[in-house]
Amino acid sequence: MPIAQTPPPPYYAVIFTSLRTEGENGYAAMSNRMVELATQQPGYLGYESAREGVGITVSYWESLEAIRDWKAQTEHLFAQQAGRDRWYSAYKVRICLVDRDYGFEV
Amino acid sequence: MPIAQTPPPPYYAVIFTSLRTEGENGYAAMSNRMVELATQQPGYLGYESAREGVGITVSYWESLEAIRDWKAQTEHLFAQQAGRDRWYSAYKVRICLVDRDYGFEV
Repeated sequence: MPIAQTPPPPYYAVIFTSLRTEGENGYAAMSNRMVELATQQPGYLGYESAREGVGITVSYWESLEAIRDWKAQTEHLFAQQAGRDRWYSAYKVRICLVDRDYGFEV
Repeated sequence: MPIAQTPPPPYYAVIFTSLRTEGENGYAAMSNRMVELATQQPGYLGYESAREGVGITVSYWESLEAIRDWKAQTEHLFAQQAGRDRWYSAYKVRICLVDRDYGFEV
């Protein structure tokens, strides 16, 4: 997975930090499907994800409205409920305004 | 690693996304030392980190001033330079205002 290519700030980030339950239970399929759906949402800018004990997924968005629409997307709502029922023992969602960014590349 | 226990928003997040070079070259020792130092900085609130191909480290801070002071911390400045010389092929730093958060726990 590359570093997300986001436009100049300001834009928004959703930091989703999670701890998984034991067992696969269809998690990978759901996760891939959610990426596929998010990519198609209006205002989607990119995402980055890694799990190493804790899982961190950061998705980037043009506006708070885009984030609200993604949260309310029908199939995503089912996944959120199944996440609480089945896949996650805990998670935290943080909605952020990205104010400044800078980077480095060899 | 647990999910960071942060106070109610507003607070700040620094999302550091990186790609590593080949080879260890003292990376783990530096990384542990930077966590130890960050924890001692004024205004430090917590951090979360995972690497799976891409590395994502999110640190949380009380204020932009706390973030500036951490960026300018002497030993951290050396690590930043060594990071560009040795450990990272690319990175991106995003400075964010966390506006809202919510969570779930079994």
